Amino acid sequence: MQRYFVASKEENVFYPSKEDLHHIYHVMRMKEGDLVEVVYEEELYLGKIKDNGIILEKKLSEENKTSNVILIIPVLKEAKMDFILQKATELGVYGIYPFKSERSVVKTDGKDDKKIERWRKIVKEASEQSKRVTIPKIPKIFSLQELKDLDGNKIFCSTTEKEKNVKKYLTKHKKYDKLNIVVGPEGGLSKKEEAFLIDNGFIPVSLGPFIMRVETVPIFILSIISYESME
Amino acid sequence: MQRYFVASKEENVFYPSKEDLHHIYHVMRMKEGDLVEVVYEEELYLGKIKDNGIILEKKLSEENKTSNVILIIPVLKEAKMDFILQKATELGVYGIYPFKSERSVVKTDGKDDKKIERWRKIVKEASEQSKRVTIPKIPKIFSLQELKDLDGNKIFCSTTEKEKNVKKYLTKHKKYDKLNIVVGPEGGLSKKEEAFLIDNGFIPVSLGPFIMRVETVPIFILSIISYESME
Repeated sequence: MQRYFVASKEENVFYPSKEDLHHIYHVMRMKEGDLVEVVYEEELYLGKIKDNGIILEKKLSEENKTSNVILIIPVLKEAKMDFILQKATELGVYGIYPFKSERSVVKTDGKDDKKIERWRKIVKEASEQSKRVTIPKIPKIFSLQELKDLDGNKIFCSTTEKEKNVKKYLTKHKKYDKLNIVVGPEGGLSKKEEAFLIDNGFIPVSLGPFIMRVETVPIFILSIISYESME
Repeated sequence: MQRYFVASKEENVFYPSKEDLHHIYHVMRMKEGDLVEVVYEEELYLGKIKDNGIILEKKLSEENKTSNVILIIPVLKEAKMDFILQKATELGVYGIYPFKSERSVVKTDGKDDKKIERWRKIVKEASEQSKRVTIPKIPKIFSLQELKDLDGNKIFCSTTEKEKNVKKYLTKHKKYDKLNIVVGPEGGLSKKEEAFLIDNGFIPVSLGPFIMRVETVPIFILSIISYESME
């Protein structure tokens, strides 16, 4: 069943956005009386389409599969960024925090708001498709300096770290703890950036022997975290 | 340094394909005397470009990072297929065996050879980029029936299996053993296909709570296998 995230509710009627109404009537070609799933304030409901609203039929229960992982990635070119946003959403990421790294090729000057709006749209749609009840948080574009204020456990993917691989870290890390993970841009983080992160409590980890493209790294990490939490 | 897989060698000179010569002189704009890495019969060499050949300078040693995993995937639409071929190569897959599944939308009638040729080109290029010394094997397009002749350990990703997750399987599986993994198409394997695989020694495993797109599944699996083999 099609799922929609809805931000507005009055009494027992949900009011989807214009874009979602267009999707309901013109893309999915649904009619009044058809049933859809509605997520409102991170709760799942069954609803029936009527006019420009969706009437609440009943509350559904669903396990929240969102992980406790915040993925911190450089601002990348559109195709790679979109890919990571979609796949990270699929794999249950809690938040995606873009940051400006020295070797990011993409400049965001003055366009931060437009970019963020676009990214939020992508993760909303990916959340609907992968049947989440939460949408990954994308608060803003961070500077490196602002990353030091994050709470929880903190690691970064290092291309120079040889000793400590990510398995050594994750097998000690408790799965319900919050985990912030910084992924570097193509060409890696600069020495200065790595030093700054280490000074601020981030632990460097290696990801094993493969030479991965930057957009593969987040999928790799979220996959192994999901794996590590299996019982 | 740029790496090329070369199939032809006479005395101490490697002869790259026409396509690779074009890449050397016109894409990379290299000149005679420039150094490149050459992989010949799964061994790595340093070579110096001269005319239409590459002169062997010295043998290099490099760890072979290829896993023992054969990924068995339905024939998918071009974009998804290309994506899986590239990412699976990046993550060290030993072989990629496409097979015809009931719910594959893509028909290959009469075009098998052309398709395979194209796929082999993609994994060769991905192997060069990710600095492998082996190229993933793509022997042919298999029928479901032919999969029963594969040797080694055999599993398939099941959307109905609830009890046995992939972690339970992998933690028991010895990492140097050969492992065949079947991934189903969008909509999953049919009941008949699942029954056939079980009858022929394939074990169903679940991949955890996420609803993944078909092209995400191979990356997920190869990531967790790499993770499980970390020490």
